[in-house]
Amino acid sequence: MNPICQVEGFIEAWNQSDLAAIEAALDDAVIYHNIPMEPIAGKNPVVEVIRGFLAGTTACNWETHHIAANGPIVMTERTDQFTLANGREAAVRVMGTFEIAADGRITHWRDYFDRVEMEREFGMDSTGGASST
Amino acid sequence: MNPICQVEGFIEAWNQSDLAAIEAALDDAVIYHNIPMEPIAGKNPVVEVIRGFLAGTTACNWETHHIAANGPIVMTERTDQFTLANGREAAVRVMGTFEIAADGRITHWRDYFDRVEMEREFGMDSTGGASST
Repeated sequence: MNPICQVEGFIEAWNQSDLAAIEAALDDAVIYHNIPMEPIAGKNPVVEVIRGFLAGTTACNWETHHIAANGPIVMTERTDQFTLANGREAAVRVMGTFEIAADGRITHWRDYFDRVEMEREFGMDSTGGASST
Repeated sequence: MNPICQVEGFIEAWNQSDLAAIEAALDDAVIYHNIPMEPIAGKNPVVEVIRGFLAGTTACNWETHHIAANGPIVMTERTDQFTLANGREAAVRVMGTFEIAADGRITHWRDYFDRVEMEREFGMDSTGGASST
């Protein structure tokens, strides 16, 4: 399978908020690391985090500006836009690396972004709690 | 020219702290954007910022974990390590996109990282000033 197509399909699954398709794209031993936070290891823990995240949104619109591959490594430059359940619009500028197994599943996903920007966009205060403003 | 080789040469210029080689790799109209900060436009302003930055370091050791290209777009996943003039060691996890002109020069450079991590590693306080600790 073409690794770029696998990642494009994974991003499309996010844009459909299709948790089953997201889950199907992940290797059982996937490691998901938002670089400013701690990594999460294993499909089930990762899916539970994504499930909770999607529950707080009503729409995802990830725009891929650039994508490139080198063998099983796929690198993306994106703006990840979300409509939050409280009506707020959030957009975070991101670069992410995906490592794709021979069967097409994602074994590693690392997203690089500014934690300050993420917290501002999601209306979180500096201690990580949600703000109503 | 191979865009990946151009970017590898640019990173090597940083690792030699070779400002002349860094400058030679940049297009006159380069836009350099550390995503958490404002972009800097034009070779001369960019070189002055880099000159000031290098003056605060005694060594650069950027480790490239992954690099991939799609036409003139080159994407990197790196750990940028520095020895600062005050003896402090700093390391920032980065992904960066480079856009390469037909003549091999860099027209756009965008680095994505966590501003909190950068300020911690460089010993800067939250207002951007330097700390002596």
